Amino acid sequence: VAAAPDPPVRLIAIDWGTSALRAWLLGAEARRLGTRETPHGIMRLPQGGFAEALDAAAGDWIRAHPALPIVACGMVGSAQGWREVPYRRTPADAAALAEGLAAVDIGDGRHMHIVPGILHDATLPDVMRGEETQIVGALQTCDEAPRRRLFVLPGTHSKWVSTAAACIVSLRTFLTGEVYAALREHTILGRLMTDGGGPDPAAFALGLRTAGEQHGEAGLLGNLFSARSLALTGRLAGGALPDYLSGLLIGAELAGARAMFPVGGFGVEDEIGVVGSASLSARYVEALRAVGHRRIAVHADAAVDGLWNIARRAGLVVA
Amino acid sequence: VAAAPDPPVRLIAIDWGTSALRAWLLGAEARRLGTRETPHGIMRLPQGGFAEALDAAAGDWIRAHPALPIVACGMVGSAQGWREVPYRRTPADAAALAEGLAAVDIGDGRHMHIVPGILHDATLPDVMRGEETQIVGALQTCDEAPRRRLFVLPGTHSKWVSTAAACIVSLRTFLTGEVYAALREHTILGRLMTDGGGPDPAAFALGLRTAGEQHGEAGLLGNLFSARSLALTGRLAGGALPDYLSGLLIGAELAGARAMFPVGGFGVEDEIGVVGSASLSARYVEALRAVGHRRIAVHADAAVDGLWNIARRAGLVVA
Repeated sequence: VAAAPDPPVRLIAIDWGTSALRAWLLGAEARRLGTRETPHGIMRLPQGGFAEALDAAAGDWIRAHPALPIVACGMVGSAQGWREVPYRRTPADAAALAEGLAAVDIGDGRHMHIVPGILHDATLPDVMRGEETQIVGALQTCDEAPRRRLFVLPGTHSKWVSTAAACIVSLRTFLTGEVYAALREHTILGRLMTDGGGPDPAAFALGLRTAGEQHGEAGLLGNLFSARSLALTGRLAGGALPDYLSGLLIGAELAGARAMFPVGGFGVEDEIGVVGSASLSARYVEALRAVGHRRIAVHADAAVDGLWNIARRAGLVVA
Repeated sequence: VAAAPDPPVRLIAIDWGTSALRAWLLGAEARRLGTRETPHGIMRLPQGGFAEALDAAAGDWIRAHPALPIVACGMVGSAQGWREVPYRRTPADAAALAEGLAAVDIGDGRHMHIVPGILHDATLPDVMRGEETQIVGALQTCDEAPRRRLFVLPGTHSKWVSTAAACIVSLRTFLTGEVYAALREHTILGRLMTDGGGPDPAAFALGLRTAGEQHGEAGLLGNLFSARSLALTGRLAGGALPDYLSGLLIGAELAGARAMFPVGGFGVEDEIGVVGSASLSARYVEALRAVGHRRIAVHADAAVDGLWNIARRAGLVVA
């Protein structure tokens, strides 16, 4: 009996951020042939640095396929990364990102191509590295690409990105995740919080409502103290406070983003894309539903589709 | 030659907060005959506890004047204080606070009377201890007491307090100072900040404008990242970032408070009272001026006037 022939390989795709490295071995039409994840983000590299981290994640693939192109996105292209790749400016589409690819020597005569981040050079400038590739991937799976779209990429630094005709046109970072951690660990708000009760959807929803229609006018700074006073007055248990605070923050983020982006014509009737991990995306979907959005598309693993698309535009792979 | 007679003494007034204790020896008409300040806030007590802290600040006054009443306000009346004094609820005036005084035995048959804090039991409940006494003091020096008034007491936890007919009617805590410290010390925003350049009024004003008319719609979470991106793009120096962040936060607080309290009819034409220390008050005066307020009254040392007034209402002193 002859063994089935190995499927043809086309690309090694890498999403290399601050705290993790994810790698995919891709076949024709971006078919996933293998997936790896290591904790070797650029701030958590092993002894041997970038080369060692890449080898640990994908060394066997690289050696087995000497001609295979390698494309990476994320903080690996930052000043703290393997090679600093200059930002592309808005507006930028997949072709512009492909044009901006920069190669880094990974040894043995091989190179890894790094996707540039994006600089939105407005009155308040903003930047992203990695999320632009996720947007390119998410746009591919949208039903009609040329329209204006709004995406949120939840995280430590949530990104809100608007696109038009498959071009990234504007960008705003919300510091939601990092502020949550700082408030919980380093302010009086953490004192009454207890863990272990599991998620508390009612407390999360109450936080959303407080940040939204009910008390939104006071703003985040004017609502935060309620994450203490509601417990002091016996209306919320200590175990409910983490989810209440999460609701206050995501609700404030949503109110800000909705107020900021309607100039582009976004309303509850327009599709919003949520790009990210399942658990965090679920919170944002709930928050969007709570303010009336019904057309919400969730994009998981968008980075790999974006890397494929950019590699294809750069002529590194053929579909 | 006969020595001038000692002026008559009437009251020992104490403002006893979390991080400091201030004491005044008062004569007729609240004349200041002596002032003391020690670092013995209720979270920084000496070995001997509350009694030792009081003795260090005012023991000589207490022994020299065996019949002198002693009145204190602040966190000394909290659950972590010398004696927990139940909150009075809004609406509350000086008479209600005098009614709520609770005595604690300080030894040798003497007592200290502690002013109750105030609970505003609304949908988002809020509390204060110490600030209610400052408001009572500030109201005394207002030109016409019976009108509606709005006060801000800047600090780690800024308090906005509205009054009507010399009654405290509502209250909201803004976590501005504590959030500033947590952001600066425990998020990425602190990384590019440098010290030592002295105050930067232009950076503070830019932060105010960004939080206000220019980009206020994005809210605090959506504007914070600019305290990094403006430095990354070379538009602000590292030494300007602390004041820029301070402007972003105080601007957001002001926008929230102005949006929350106009239901009471407050506008730029109404007098606003700023109650607190000179340096922090100056920032809030600048922020209020930047959004058009012209009638701003600054009240320093309002606590001592409030303590005097409450003691008088309680019959502990006669004017």
